[in-house]
Amino acid sequence: MPYVSIRVAGKLSRKQKKKIARGVTDVIAKAANKPKESILIFIDEESRENIASGGVLLDEK
Amino acid sequence: MPYVSIRVAGKLSRKQKKKIARGVTDVIAKAANKPKESILIFIDEESRENIASGGVLLDEK
Amino acid sequence: MPYVSIRVAGKLSRKQKKKIARGVTDVIAKAANKPKESILIFIDEESRENIASGGVLLDEK
Amino acid sequence: MPYVSIRVAGKLSRKQKKKIARGVTDVIAKAANKPKESILIFIDEESRENIASGGVLLDEK
Amino acid sequence: MPYVSIRVAGKLSRKQKKKIARGVTDVIAKAANKPKESILIFIDEESRENIASGGVLLDEK
Amino acid sequence: MPYVSIRVAGKLSRKQKKKIARGVTDVIAKAANKPKESILIFIDEESRENIASGGVLLDEK
Repeated sequence: MPYVSIRVAGKLSRKQKKKIARGVTDVIAKAANKPKESILIFIDEESRENIASGGVLLDEK
Repeated sequence: MPYVSIRVAGKLSRKQKKKIARGVTDVIAKAANKPKESILIFIDEESRENIASGGVLLDEK
Repeated sequence: MPYVSIRVAGKLSRKQKKKIARGVTDVIAKAANKPKESILIFIDEESRENIASGGVLLDEK
Repeated sequence: MPYVSIRVAGKLSRKQKKKIARGVTDVIAKAANKPKESILIFIDEESRENIASGGVLLDEK
Repeated sequence: MPYVSIRVAGKLSRKQKKKIARGVTDVIAKAANKPKESILIFIDEESRENIASGGVLLDEK
Repeated sequence: MPYVSIRVAGKLSRKQKKKIARGVTDVIAKAANKPKESILIFIDEESRENIASGGVLLDEK
């Protein structure tokens, strides 16, 4: 029952989400030897105003 | 200070959230022997487009 | 596919974990109207030296 | 590569987020002896209807 | 600055972790159009006694 | 009831954890105008073998 949380800055298209869901599931299923059906993925699209690196909000860079 | 994060697909009504908050708090307080007041719960309602199982987005199933 | 993460200070016995798993699953299944089999729970037992409330580590209180 | 997730009830202004990003980065960089550029912070502003303490939703208190 | 958290039941070998790190990074970099260097992954190996599905601890199934 | 999760590579001393707990609590209390007592912090010390950036495990860099 692998659980995966993916947090990205900004919005993704449905096509991008489908590619991530399929690709990440394939990688983990193969590498960790887990059935694909057991892998659960959550994708969070976060505002750039709510993420900081180096102490600075992303949308101020 | 137990912390609980609950992530569900789709929206919950206020009534459902109240039941979850009360019920989960009761279970953990009793089973883990912690004061109810110390238990903190976050409920996340996620879009079905942002969750995948078996490599497929939930809203494509 | 509800996902639940529970973080507690200190160790729990197997019996406590079983009660939490069963009880929390029942509450969410009933309140949110989800099949029990779809509910995934992770329990994290954290050292009291690694949790703080009010700015003070729990094991210094 | 420290990762920090901060979840608060209600909305924060941009000014508040900037102060949190700068301040938390400074504290961790200095205390843990990590380069500031490596510190990644996510701030989540959660609805008070989706947080409970003591088994009660925050907006019912 | 995508952040990825992967939680699996049981231990992984170093070889498995390397494959997951490389593969998941490649998938997200390509699908979300992000530089590889910006992708941060945490892998958590959890005890089967601390995970439940369907209300039952994994090591009791 | 702000909740903060901090994940770092490698071990921290008790002194470092105390500084982080006190400092992060002060910053958030002041910036977000929350009572200190309501702020809950979890510090996770992760193995460098379980973190990757740019697709490479930290202990292989």
